[in-house]
Amino acid sequence: MIRPPPGPRGEIELIRRLRPLLDRPDSPVGFGDDMGVLECPGQPVLWAVDMLMDGVDFDSRVHEWAAIGRKAMAVNLSDCAAMGAQPVAALCAVALSNALTMDDAVALVRGAHEFGLRFGCPVVGGDTNSWDSPTVISVSIAACCEPGCQPVRRNGARPGDRLWLTGPVGGSLLGRHLTFEPRVAAGLEINRRLRPHAMIDISDGLALDLGRVLEASGCGAVLDEVNLDALIHPNATQMSGTDGRSPRDHALHDGEDFELIVALPPETRESECSALGLSPLGYVTGEPGLRIQAADGRLEAVEIRGWEHFR
Amino acid sequence: MIRPPPGPRGEIELIRRLRPLLDRPDSPVGFGDDMGVLECPGQPVLWAVDMLMDGVDFDSRVHEWAAIGRKAMAVNLSDCAAMGAQPVAALCAVALSNALTMDDAVALVRGAHEFGLRFGCPVVGGDTNSWDSPTVISVSIAACCEPGCQPVRRNGARPGDRLWLTGPVGGSLLGRHLTFEPRVAAGLEINRRLRPHAMIDISDGLALDLGRVLEASGCGAVLDEVNLDALIHPNATQMSGTDGRSPRDHALHDGEDFELIVALPPETRESECSALGLSPLGYVTGEPGLRIQAADGRLEAVEIRGWEHFR
Repeated sequence: MIRPPPGPRGEIELIRRLRPLLDRPDSPVGFGDDMGVLECPGQPVLWAVDMLMDGVDFDSRVHEWAAIGRKAMAVNLSDCAAMGAQPVAALCAVALSNALTMDDAVALVRGAHEFGLRFGCPVVGGDTNSWDSPTVISVSIAACCEPGCQPVRRNGARPGDRLWLTGPVGGSLLGRHLTFEPRVAAGLEINRRLRPHAMIDISDGLALDLGRVLEASGCGAVLDEVNLDALIHPNATQMSGTDGRSPRDHALHDGEDFELIVALPPETRESECSALGLSPLGYVTGEPGLRIQAADGRLEAVEIRGWEHFR
Repeated sequence: MIRPPPGPRGEIELIRRLRPLLDRPDSPVGFGDDMGVLECPGQPVLWAVDMLMDGVDFDSRVHEWAAIGRKAMAVNLSDCAAMGAQPVAALCAVALSNALTMDDAVALVRGAHEFGLRFGCPVVGGDTNSWDSPTVISVSIAACCEPGCQPVRRNGARPGDRLWLTGPVGGSLLGRHLTFEPRVAAGLEINRRLRPHAMIDISDGLALDLGRVLEASGCGAVLDEVNLDALIHPNATQMSGTDGRSPRDHALHDGEDFELIVALPPETRESECSALGLSPLGYVTGEPGLRIQAADGRLEAVEIRGWEHFR
């Protein structure tokens, strides 16, 4: 059994400290009732959940609790970005290790809440638990599309679509997995202006997550070698120097980049894509599988693999 | 590190097995996208989350995984009951111990989903993770009030209100904490027909959860000794025989009964309450604190305590 650190204890005291942080006097159901309220007038509500575990998704020996809370919110905001939707509110459930202090626990929830607020997405409820095992934090998020917009699914890519990325990928383990900026504004803007056929955020790796789009859409894809190499993050090159994997391998298979993969109809103007910060990656094919095309036209198959739980 | 049991592994295979269980062809966003969709046309959406941990809320050495999944859903359904709301859909996030088999993992989610379906509340999305620590399951739930109804909050009790319970309490540890029936139908009916001032479900104990209503409402309460003793569950008496605590102490302070505490205006007819399966417990007072009134009129203070995490 873990011996609790000195200082104030108790779920009741924790909730008392969270109340001034989270209470919204204008909410139809106040802080600390059995359920919270979501307000998305006239729009369907999108929702999702992500769970992070100490030692797997973060390391509390190294990372600050506020930064961990930020990440728990950020991975959920990234799901909203991938649907082209505006985050609205979040719930935060925690199983706190008994080794945490009261300040740690408040910092964790505050980290999630304050980062969410930057995107219009407060923590409006949750569940606080404790135990003798490592800390778990699970954030649920709700989002709405803008009027006239639809959620962007992953199954709408078609042969001939162009593939774009919101930013460079690979090597996020060097720190970006904790500090990345979810592409919420880009996702909304892309949905509003470009009507993408499919979109997904890169949580388990470019190849694996693009593979999910292709599988759901019944398509394949060809990545342009020059474009792909231009999208290798400096962190991927840096990691490559010590682990012997190529920078491109990092870019294809590392997880937690949280950039968006976007499939756009071929008639979309490149200038419009560039104006939204998108970089070209390749195109969707009728033939299944994922391949890289070299400058000389030669095609090479890419294995669809990345981070997978429960192996 | 836990050595995985023999048999199929992998999150991808797990999700493949969950798809036929959870996929809803009529949903605007299909199975396995970044987010699911909630449909509560024209009504505000209520939502909540509860997290259960192995060794704290259940014991996987003793309990079946399907029964654990059922409980994870049931505690959330109970939150909907406490708001007088109809559950609509749920998300299920899991951190699976690596000691689980694929069949265990499917049974866990299936247990949640199939129990939810009995209340019109399918699992529509989630997050699957694994690690070397005990299993965690976190269900988020969404609910809507019926047209013309409002969510029943915990802060509306007023001096003079009568307090009622949906059933007997105490001793749930003997097994009911895993097999209880959430009072969803009763909660809806009470909201529709009786317009209660306040309602809460008993998760941490009658005294503690009633205390939450009283604190939020700025009131106190007196419990009638004869009524209270009539609401002692046989399990409370049974436990009392071995642990030396009185049956009444179990009824007041044991958690996980998941009966509803209902505060009704004094003019509500007793016959209407009885018809809905409610039993009388006492009344709300302007004076703060919780007390028991004996047959001879004598008042005795009750300590507001029960299960508290993070002690």
